Parts: sequence; C-alpha cells; structure tokens
Amino acid sequence: MPVSLTAYQDLEKRFQKMAVLGEAQSMLHWDMAVMMPPGGAHARAEQMAALRVMHHNQMIDPAVGDLLDESEMMQLDGWQRANVKEMRRGYIHATAVPADLVEASSKAAAACETIWREARITSDFKAVEDSMKHVLNLTKEIGAAKADKLKCSLYDALLDQYEPDGKSADIDPIFDDYAAFLPDFLQEVLDHQKSQGLPVQPKGPFPKEVQKKLTRKFAEAVGFDFMSGRMDESAHPFSTGYKGDSRITVRYDEDDFASGIMAVLHECGHAMYEQGLPDQWQHQPVGDARGMAIHESQSLIVEMQACRSPEFVSWVGPQLAAAFGDDPAYKADNLYKIYTTVKPDFIRVDADEVTYPAHVILRYRLEKAMLEGDMNIGDLPSAWNEGMQQLLGIVPPDHARGCMQDIHWYDGAWGYFPTYTLGAMTAAQLYEKANFDQADIKPALAKGDFGPLLSWLRQNIHSAGSRYSTAELTTRATGKNLDPNNFKAHLKRRYLLD
Amino acid sequence: MPVSLTAYQDLEKRFQKMAVLGEAQSMLHWDMAVMMPPGGAHARAEQMAALRVMHHNQMIDPAVGDLLDESEMMQLDGWQRANVKEMRRGYIHATAVPADLVEASSKAAAACETIWREARITSDFKAVEDSMKHVLNLTKEIGAAKADKLKCSLYDALLDQYEPDGKSADIDPIFDDYAAFLPDFLQEVLDHQKSQGLPVQPKGPFPKEVQKKLTRKFAEAVGFDFMSGRMDESAHPFSTGYKGDSRITVRYDEDDFASGIMAVLHECGHAMYEQGLPDQWQHQPVGDARGMAIHESQSLIVEMQACRSPEFVSWVGPQLAAAFGDDPAYKADNLYKIYTTVKPDFIRVDADEVTYPAHVILRYRLEKAMLEGDMNIGDLPSAWNEGMQQLLGIVPPDHARGCMQDIHWYDGAWGYFPTYTLGAMTAAQLYEKANFDQADIKPALAKGDFGPLLSWLRQNIHSAGSRYSTAELTTRATGKNLDPNNFKAHLKRRYLLD
Repeated sequence: MPVSLTAYQDLEKRFQKMAVLGEAQSMLHWDMAVMMPPGGAHARAEQMAALRVMHHNQMIDPAVGDLLDESEMMQLDGWQRANVKEMRRGYIHATAVPADLVEASSKAAAACETIWREARITSDFKAVEDSMKHVLNLTKEIGAAKADKLKCSLYDALLDQYEPDGKSADIDPIFDDYAAFLPDFLQEVLDHQKSQGLPVQPKGPFPKEVQKKLTRKFAEAVGFDFMSGRMDESAHPFSTGYKGDSRITVRYDEDDFASGIMAVLHECGHAMYEQGLPDQWQHQPVGDARGMAIHESQSLIVEMQACRSPEFVSWVGPQLAAAFGDDPAYKADNLYKIYTTVKPDFIRVDADEVTYPAHVILRYRLEKAMLEGDMNIGDLPSAWNEGMQQLLGIVPPDHARGCMQDIHWYDGAWGYFPTYTLGAMTAAQLYEKANFDQADIKPALAKGDFGPLLSWLRQNIHSAGSRYSTAELTTRATGKNLDPNNFKAHLKRRYLLD
Repeated sequence: MPVSLTAYQDLEKRFQKMAVLGEAQSMLHWDMAVMMPPGGAHARAEQMAALRVMHHNQMIDPAVGDLLDESEMMQLDGWQRANVKEMRRGYIHATAVPADLVEASSKAAAACETIWREARITSDFKAVEDSMKHVLNLTKEIGAAKADKLKCSLYDALLDQYEPDGKSADIDPIFDDYAAFLPDFLQEVLDHQKSQGLPVQPKGPFPKEVQKKLTRKFAEAVGFDFMSGRMDESAHPFSTGYKGDSRITVRYDEDDFASGIMAVLHECGHAMYEQGLPDQWQHQPVGDARGMAIHESQSLIVEMQACRSPEFVSWVGPQLAAAFGDDPAYKADNLYKIYTTVKPDFIRVDADEVTYPAHVILRYRLEKAMLEGDMNIGDLPSAWNEGMQQLLGIVPPDHARGCMQDIHWYDGAWGYFPTYTLGAMTAAQLYEKANFDQADIKPALAKGDFGPLLSWLRQNIHSAGSRYSTAELTTRATGKNLDPNNFKAHLKRRYLLD
C-alpha cells in the first residue's frame, strides 16, 4: 500500500469497500426472495441489518466528509469529478438524517406495511390510516432534513433518493401535458381498437417447463449471458446482482403465456444495463446506474419498445407455435394485437403503456400534495377515485383496487412513482433516436437479434454509468432533454396507425 | 442500550455480531458453490474477503483481549465460563499469527491448490512439490505461533483449529491400536464376505428426478425440516447454514442409486446437529458445534450406524422398489450386503467404514512427520505407498490415486484428517449407548423413523453445544472417553456375524 494516498484515492478505496459490501447485501436479499426457507427469515433479517449498519457506518465516518471537502478542491478529470459528486450525494443522504429518525422511520414503515397487508384484504383504509400518517410524518422529517442539505424542496429531496437531481418543476409540465393529452387519445385508441376487432386468444394451458425453456431462449436473444447470470422463480419478478452476476426472476402463469415472457424481457433490460456499466469504474459511485428513470428506460426499451414492436413480434410467433403447438393466435398480426391491447383498468402493474402514465401521474400528484401538506391522508380515498375518474374515466370498486394497491406509501417509498413514467418516456425517445442512428435495429429484431440495439445502448447509455446527470445523458444520446412528444408520437404510431 | 455493560456482556454483544457476519459468509459461500454463475467468481471472492477482514478485525480488536482478561476474573455460571473459554480460543487463533503471515499463507495455499489441480491429472508430484513445501513451511510457522499461545505442540495447535483441545498423545494409541487390528480383521472380513457370496446389483439407470424425490423422502425421515432448510445439487456434497436455515447438497449419479442417497443422509446428520444446537446460546461460541470430530460423529451415526443398519435397510428396500421398479436386488438381505461391502481401495472418499480409518491413519502419521521435520516432502510418495501396503496391502498405481488425491495438504488444511476417524469411532460408541438407553431406536428405524435416535442425540449431544470439551461430552453421553473398542466391536458384529 502506498504510504500516502491523496484524498481522492482514499475516497475511492473507501467507496470500493462499501460497494463490495453492497454486493454482498444484494446477494443475501436475492437469496431471501428466491431460495431461503421460511425458517431462515429471522437470521437473515439480522444479517442484513448487520451489513447495513456496517455500510452506513463506513459512509458516515467524518473522515469521508473531510476527504470530500478536500477532493472537491483537487484537480481531477471529468470521471473523477463526477465520482466525487456522486460520493457527496451518498454522503449527504447518509448523514443528513439523525440515526434515531432513520430507525424510527424504518420501524414505522415495517409496522405500517404489516397492517397494510392485512387491511388491504378487506379494503379497510381506516385501519391503516393512522399508521400511514405516522410514516408520512417521519418521511416529511427525513425529506426536510435532506432538503436542507441538498438545497432543494422536500419533495425533490425524496425524489433524489431514486432519481438523482430529479426536479418536480421539470416533471409537472411533462405529466400535465400527458394528463391533458390522454382522455381524448384514449378514446381514439379504444375506437380504433374496436374497429380492428379483438385478437384471438391462444388456447392454454401453457406448461411451466415449456415457458421456462422459451423465456430462457428469449433472454438469450436479448443478450442475457447465462455464464454471467441466472434466471429463477419468485413471487414477484425482479432483477438484482451486478456486473458478472445478474439475477433475474420470473413468475410463470400456466393460463397466460404472455405475462411471464414479457416480465422476463423487462428484467433482462434492467440486467443488460447493469452488465454494460463501465468496467473501469466498477465499485465506484460513478460506475453505478444513473438512476431509476434511466434504469426503467432500459427495461422498457426492451419490453415495450423492442419486444412489442411488429418486427420482434413477427419473430416471436413461430417460437410460440414451436413451443406450445400451432395456434392461429400466434400469427404475427394477431399476436401484435394481443401485445398492444389497451384497456383502462384499476391496477397499475397490469396496465398497458397508454394508461400506465395515468396511474403514475395520479400517485405523483397525490403524494406531492400529502407531503406538502395540501391534502390530508383521510381525503386520499376520495381524491384517488376522483383522479381515476378524471384520468381514465373509471372508479375502482374498492380501496384494494384503489389507493391501497401499491406497497410504496405504506413502506415509506415516497418520491419513487414518477420514475416509472419518466422511464417509459425516455425509452420512447431513446428508441426513436437509436433507430434514426442505426437502420439495422428493426431488421435485426425481426430475426430475434438484439445486437444492433444493444450496441447502441451500450455506447450511448450503459457505458456512461453516472458520469452525466440524467438530463445530460439523455441530451448526449438524443440531442435534447426528455421530450414527452416522442412518447406520444410512439403511442400514436403504435395504437392509431399500425 | 444500558449505559454500562459488564465485560462479559460486552463480549457477548461482540461475538453475537461476529456470528451474524459469519452466517452471511456461509450463505455467500453456499451460493458460490451451488448457484453462482461463473462470471460472479471475481466479485464473490472480493465480497468474501471483505467480510473475512471485517470479521477478523472485530476479533483482533485489543478491547476483546482486555474484556477476556476481565471476564476470566468474573463470577460466571458454567455456560458463561465455557463461552469465555471458547471466545479466548477464537481470540488466540486470530491474534497469534501476524497478519502478513496469514496473508502469505492463504496466497501460498491458493497458488498451490491451483498447481495441484493441474498436476494431479498427470500424477506429477514433482510439479507441485516446491509449492507444497512452501505451504508446509508457512503452516509450520503458523502452528508454532499458535502453539506458543496455546501452550501445546505444533501439531496439536493446528489440530485445535478443527478439533478443540484435541491431542495427538490421545490419538496415537487409538490409531496404533486400529492399525494393529486392521490387517488380520480385514482378511477375516474379506473371507467372510466371500463365503456369503456377492450381492446382486440392481439394474439402472436410476433417473435423477426419481432419486431427488427419494432423497427428499429419506431426508424427511431422518428429521430434516424443509421449512428450515434446502437440498440442492453441487459438484461435491456438503452441508452449511445454521439453525433455521440448513443447506445440504447432493450429487446424483444415474448409474449408482446408492451413493447419492447415502451422501444425503450423511449431510443430514451434520444438519440435524446444527439444528439441535442450544437455542438460548445461538450466536455465541458456546452455542456452536463442539468440533469436527463430534460433527463427523453426527453425520456418521446417521449414515454409517443407523442408515446401514439391518433395521433401516429393511425399510429402505421397499422404498427403492417403489421408486425405481421392483428388483430382486432390493430384498433386505441383498441390500444390506450392498451397503456393507468391504473392499480395500485407493481412494479415501470412496472407502467403506472398515478400511476408511487406514486412509486417515496414514495421512495423520505422514502429516505429523512432515510438520515435525521427521520426513521430507520429497519422500512423501514412497512413504505413502509403503503405508498403503502396510495398512491395506495395496499400492496405488499412480500419485493421483495416492498422495495427490486429497486437497487438504495442498490448500493448507493440515491437522484436519484425524477428525474423520475420531468421528467414526465416536459415532459407534454413541450409537451403542443410545441403543442401550432406549430400546425403541432400532424398531423405529425399521419403520423409517429416526425420532427416538434423534431425541437421544438432541439430549446428549446437540443441546450441549460447546459447553463441554469433546472428551467431557463423550463421557457425559456414554460414561467413558472415546474407546476404540466400541468401534471395533461394531465392525465385528456387522462384518463377521450378520
């Protein structure tokens, strides 16, 4: 070891250690969700807590603050400066909030989540209201503490945890624009769909073992490397891991051939991003994924843009026929209809890409109002139903299919929702630019080959890690910051013209 | 948190943290052997090293030494005193050796293991000799440093890492006795076997999926609880995990129905021991398994004593017939012959229970001679072959089936070998005493029920954790210290009378 490290080198060493610890945590979490027998729950919780505390203690070490102050004065290159910026962000998030508030908040969230799981069954919002209020109050305290250090609004401070440098001032006009666009557009889409006739549904069941083989084949087509990853089953699909060891999970439904496959392709998009992050900055904050909006854009450019494109769907049909046996439903035109069906409904996670943003916009507006004190939690159920009526023209029959459907608010993840739709819109913009830059992307997809698309993403998104802000990254890749018109244009092409 | 902890309470808190960290390490290790794709190897090595360093740093904290000094002067109850004793042992092993020697040794072991894997293929002992010499020299340095602190011989200091308080002065007469007993006895067994005729071998193949279901059933019979454990496949069967989350692995051979099943039962024995350790001392050193000899006794009492007993085998026959289809080979008498076949051979891990101790005794004598400077590594191949000739009357045709067959010496695990045979002998003694105490053990085994045996083991072995030394534990359970005559009596009954 050299006798004297510069402040910056010292920081790199420290963050490298934390990153390795973070990897260990992610693997223990994967095991918990995918492999662990029920009897291991208590011990695992203790292990995760122990690693989290160690990680946190390494981060809040006052020496880190001193080294950051020093490094910010040093002559560094662009990557190093960006690295220090992300280190500072992590340091602020870790140190802004007193330890007892962090603990109170995670206890409140755990308690509220438990009550919510029970209350949701009977749609009993009153039963969870007080507990949710407690979570909200502590979240507001945390947000205020972080806002003070980040010098931004309370909402933006919470948003920054998931979408670094995200600003509600930028999100508001984008979401307002889509909310204004949606009602008429949705009606046009539904009319157009009606005029085209409903797709034929293929006859099931779709045996799990066959789906397994097929999803593996599709994952390989996208570029998922099984020498550097695994695919397993879990109750809720997710992806985790790191470069060299991606873990994605699937849930197979024997009555529905479509959902499992698309979920895998979605998770593959996340995994491909992680696999494409810059080698030379592995284990440094600047080498991490940029944020949740870009992360979601990478899953959605695979799932929504590429895999539901007419080109890819034309390749999928024969694969399905070969796997499940021939069925007229697998003809390209019909299959494309199945994969692009629009239907306003109550549940966000089942929503199509036209109505999905409405679910997000509603949640974004409501959580902002609650955090900013413009709305009481007691008014949430009625505000929810009004919002659904306004955006999608439907009202959920109960709170389980309304304001109690998502875990986020009940377990403390406030400020997360907008990233889904920012990701969807970014995906549309990136896909359009990628196809503009490289004419071979769509012809390749028609042969089940993601090579050209992936290589564009590697070059323009993955390899940049967190070198640039989300806005800069988007601008460098596409020539402009996020523009909702690309998403709308994509929807018009897909749902009105095709 | 109380303002002032006693020194002892402080130690408990510290060792609790280390234990939790150790659990995390064991799970990452399990994942590495069972789940991890090849691409994850590098990252995993870093994760394991990071956790190991943290664990080590927590242990060698000088405050631990001070707290131990203080605690050893305190008024404590028996369990607490035993706990402090085991804490001291851990502290000595961790602090006795300078960090640079530890590092040099693990690097040398890793390098030597790599060379050995290659050289073993062509039986090229010369190719690994220098590297092995380097490992031996560093192991001797480590042994000397530990011997100084433990106030024992170099060999016993290394043995203490696996078999706490084990002494070669106790092992020598036991092993010498067996070495003297074996040649004539082996001849008698082979003659007896010949007179009885060879068993009929069942016709394979034995499909993996059928074996899987069967091994699961057998594991459940032994008492393995799948709500608190998993069974997976790996290249080499092993067991790991902790109370609430046991992980055992199997390797299925479609040409051999017997080996996979017996390997599972062996690993189940290890797992049942871990599951039966005292709840109230979980995460404390005194709550850990006593040592490798007792651990091996628990796997062997299941595999060798109970599962190869005529009673259990009579239950196994119909299970095999139901799973693989009827075959005269599954008749109780024939199956018993299959499971108790004795055949002197070159490979330790494939050896039957009569000849297995010969393999161990040879290794024990040779490693002791090398460590004590009574033999040069260059003379190992010839000494090995002479020893095999003397003990089993056979000479391996090459070093791959001779002194290069086991990983232990090449990756630095010197002092480990004797625990296998100490475990086998302890198992025989425990089994005899258990049956003396409880008449219902064998009748239950004949019904595939391990309940009575397991309850005796829980009470007499598992629940004691590390409260007593191996010798005390054996004496408390059976009325006397390890007595090789029980093992010999068992062999005579099984191989000459039955």
